[in-house]
Amino acid sequence: MTAYKALMAFTRDTHALAQIAGRLGWDQETMMPLGATPQRAEEHGALASVLHARRTDPRIGDWLEAAKADDEVAVANIREVRRSYARASKVPANLATEIAKTTSLAHRVWAEARVNEDVAAFLPMLEKVVALRREEALAIADGSDPYDALLADYEPGASGETIGQMFAALRLRLVPLRNAILEMPVPEKLTVVFDESGQLALSEKLALAFGYDKTYGRIDKAVHPFSSGSGLDVRITTRTNPHDPFNCFYSTIHEVGHAAYEQGIDRQYLLTPLGSGVSMGVHESQSRIYENQIGRSRSFTGWLFGQMRDQFGDFGIANEDAFYACVNRVANGFIRTEADEVQYNLHVLLRFDIERALISGDLQVSDLEAAWNDRFAADFGYSIDKPSNGILQDVHWSEGLFGYFPTYSLGNVYAGCLHESLRKAVPDLDTDLAKGDTSKATGWLREHLQQFGGLRTPRDTISHATGAEPSEEPLLNYLEKKFSDLYEL
Amino acid sequence: MTAYKALMAFTRDTHALAQIAGRLGWDQETMMPLGATPQRAEEHGALASVLHARRTDPRIGDWLEAAKADDEVAVANIREVRRSYARASKVPANLATEIAKTTSLAHRVWAEARVNEDVAAFLPMLEKVVALRREEALAIADGSDPYDALLADYEPGASGETIGQMFAALRLRLVPLRNAILEMPVPEKLTVVFDESGQLALSEKLALAFGYDKTYGRIDKAVHPFSSGSGLDVRITTRTNPHDPFNCFYSTIHEVGHAAYEQGIDRQYLLTPLGSGVSMGVHESQSRIYENQIGRSRSFTGWLFGQMRDQFGDFGIANEDAFYACVNRVANGFIRTEADEVQYNLHVLLRFDIERALISGDLQVSDLEAAWNDRFAADFGYSIDKPSNGILQDVHWSEGLFGYFPTYSLGNVYAGCLHESLRKAVPDLDTDLAKGDTSKATGWLREHLQQFGGLRTPRDTISHATGAEPSEEPLLNYLEKKFSDLYEL
Repeated sequence: MTAYKALMAFTRDTHALAQIAGRLGWDQETMMPLGATPQRAEEHGALASVLHARRTDPRIGDWLEAAKADDEVAVANIREVRRSYARASKVPANLATEIAKTTSLAHRVWAEARVNEDVAAFLPMLEKVVALRREEALAIADGSDPYDALLADYEPGASGETIGQMFAALRLRLVPLRNAILEMPVPEKLTVVFDESGQLALSEKLALAFGYDKTYGRIDKAVHPFSSGSGLDVRITTRTNPHDPFNCFYSTIHEVGHAAYEQGIDRQYLLTPLGSGVSMGVHESQSRIYENQIGRSRSFTGWLFGQMRDQFGDFGIANEDAFYACVNRVANGFIRTEADEVQYNLHVLLRFDIERALISGDLQVSDLEAAWNDRFAADFGYSIDKPSNGILQDVHWSEGLFGYFPTYSLGNVYAGCLHESLRKAVPDLDTDLAKGDTSKATGWLREHLQQFGGLRTPRDTISHATGAEPSEEPLLNYLEKKFSDLYEL
Repeated sequence: MTAYKALMAFTRDTHALAQIAGRLGWDQETMMPLGATPQRAEEHGALASVLHARRTDPRIGDWLEAAKADDEVAVANIREVRRSYARASKVPANLATEIAKTTSLAHRVWAEARVNEDVAAFLPMLEKVVALRREEALAIADGSDPYDALLADYEPGASGETIGQMFAALRLRLVPLRNAILEMPVPEKLTVVFDESGQLALSEKLALAFGYDKTYGRIDKAVHPFSSGSGLDVRITTRTNPHDPFNCFYSTIHEVGHAAYEQGIDRQYLLTPLGSGVSMGVHESQSRIYENQIGRSRSFTGWLFGQMRDQFGDFGIANEDAFYACVNRVANGFIRTEADEVQYNLHVLLRFDIERALISGDLQVSDLEAAWNDRFAADFGYSIDKPSNGILQDVHWSEGLFGYFPTYSLGNVYAGCLHESLRKAVPDLDTDLAKGDTSKATGWLREHLQQFGGLRTPRDTISHATGAEPSEEPLLNYLEKKFSDLYEL
């Protein structure tokens, strides 16, 4: 057997085990009885140890040295294994264990602090998490920017500096757009109650309308919707709220976007380093373009309005135009996950700047709340009223996920680029969307992006699909046009 | 760290990984999308390799040599690890792989042959399976009886000879009992249709009535009911049939018996070699005593009759006595899994004698069908009409599970012993059972058997609970009394 074949055989089992770990996570959020929690922690830990040992197995180094790549697939596989091996090998095992233990503890402390609105109870724990992740980042970075080392876990090849410039440009046009919108009359809200079974039935119909394939997946309920798994077993979850069926429908479409990426990857990459989405940013571009540019378009919401009338009868919204405005309603709010298309990125930009400063050491954890609240007031024009609406709202930092937030807006930026190209390629798309037929959109994304999985780097994945380097311009143009029309700015 | 502590820490992770493998099996039978099958096979394979490597890790040999046992728990742990390590180490890795591959293939060939009633299509595959398992048995047996080596996987310490004597004694009294019953008028059957939601609701009520704890488990539907998992996560499944709600109810009670054993084991044994049921026979004793001696008793069926009337209204059975006769109806049939308490063991005895002869070499696979059909006619008095009612009815042999069948009847024998002791300890049990209260029965079983898990050998587990060596007498006495009364023999 050649070194390359041996490497791929070993890697295949590692990927299969990683799929199992992912499915355990799915089980925990959807099926697991509550009392099993402590046992599950041990099961997770045992599997994590096996995976860590495999990812740092010194034979990988030998195989990598001897492996010869005959084609672009082999080049990409070797690139990905090299990256994973180098990253895993640079982190001392005891530091990895310490981080796992501390973040597991910090997660519980955060959840309690959030309920009690008690920032002081969380900060000492957060300080430890920041210190450990910085230590890890410095070990991986080898002299380069430690934030970039963390970013590479979610968006390989990206740098804090480039993202910073892109996000600054976003902010420059998003803040005035937001301010202009909020001076206009606010569209009406939904006011009636929507039954759960109707929401779930229409949610499933939406998933299928966006091409979700239940032969290779399933839909369940979970507290926080997510998509999990790769290849032939990609499962999604959704949730319901009697007063807000959009939460259910757009969560579903969002997760179907993630799942479509995984389900759309060329089967030849199954259980290889190329067999799952290439980065969080590219992943989010798929969930966002499904959810927003397609799902919240005037044409598609016209169809959805009819579906909702069929499912729920008259629900107090008079016509398609009023429904479109209702779906795309922009209003004041504190919570990132509930934000509309315009304000969502402002939430992310705030977190990106703050976490970058935390990791560089320019901002101390003790000054974090003031920094958050000041920046929020500057961008949104009003003050945080309580910590659960401010720095305690997100789980990410308690889990040590520094470098994750920017991928949300990067995904929106990528979605903007892809949407521009898609519209050029399929000029009459709205005719189909108005009939609830997304196949030309999802087909274009599959053909130009999803099928390639991890074959190219994240930026190259986007530029291969669009024919241009990623830029924030298309997203900004799209948002300004859509909301200027809608709010008659 | 002492050698014993190091051994136990290593073993704990292995048990945690084995729990994960079990949960994957549960997922496959209840939740997994059909299209995921090939990927799941690779995931299972990867985890099986990890488990095999851990179970044959040479460090276990070193630890075992150096380990000192300070108490009976440590003695039992070392005994169990030594047994597992010796067994795993004696089988060459390539033979283990060959068996896994062949049985996986044979399982598919069997399923197809069964549908097509095509014995000839299955026999060459079965021949391979028998040859491989014989080779394995000879490797483990080291000169002793190879069938006992296989038996030890399911019932450590048992021998084909002892079981053979016990089963011969069973057959001597069961055949005449069966013949006498079948000369009497057959009780009436259920004839109406029972809706699925009502069956599932009452099935859950029954599970809870038998003490199943949903904080540490859950109930789902599956084609073939099973219980899976140990410790804090023990899940059961059931099934429904519109014409036969007893299938649902007694499958549930049966699986609750298995689950109660796992849920009842002392928590100090969690994820250790003592943390799950000690053998298949002892496991089956719990499922059978829940299902039969308790669940099919006159007193408990009296309560169940009322529950069914509440759930389904008048379903055509006039009173408690007629219902008791209906539940315990004995009639001609070909299928083991559908057999009543009396005939079930005759099905098992037939398989035991035949598989023992296959493994010893006294019976050739080419003569298998004739041997089966002759024995069936001798014990049951009529002939097999088609292979799916004969040698193709069970999955076990295609999966290489030789030595498994006898544990079913061993479980019934053990249940007979336990039931005799239980009735002595709780003389007024029927008063409670008539109210649907099983707590004194399940409490006695938990206190005298379930809590000990793998602490004692299987036989010692039973004799510790009953104060006597296991014997077939109590089961035979119980069956003769119950069915003589019921059929007025």
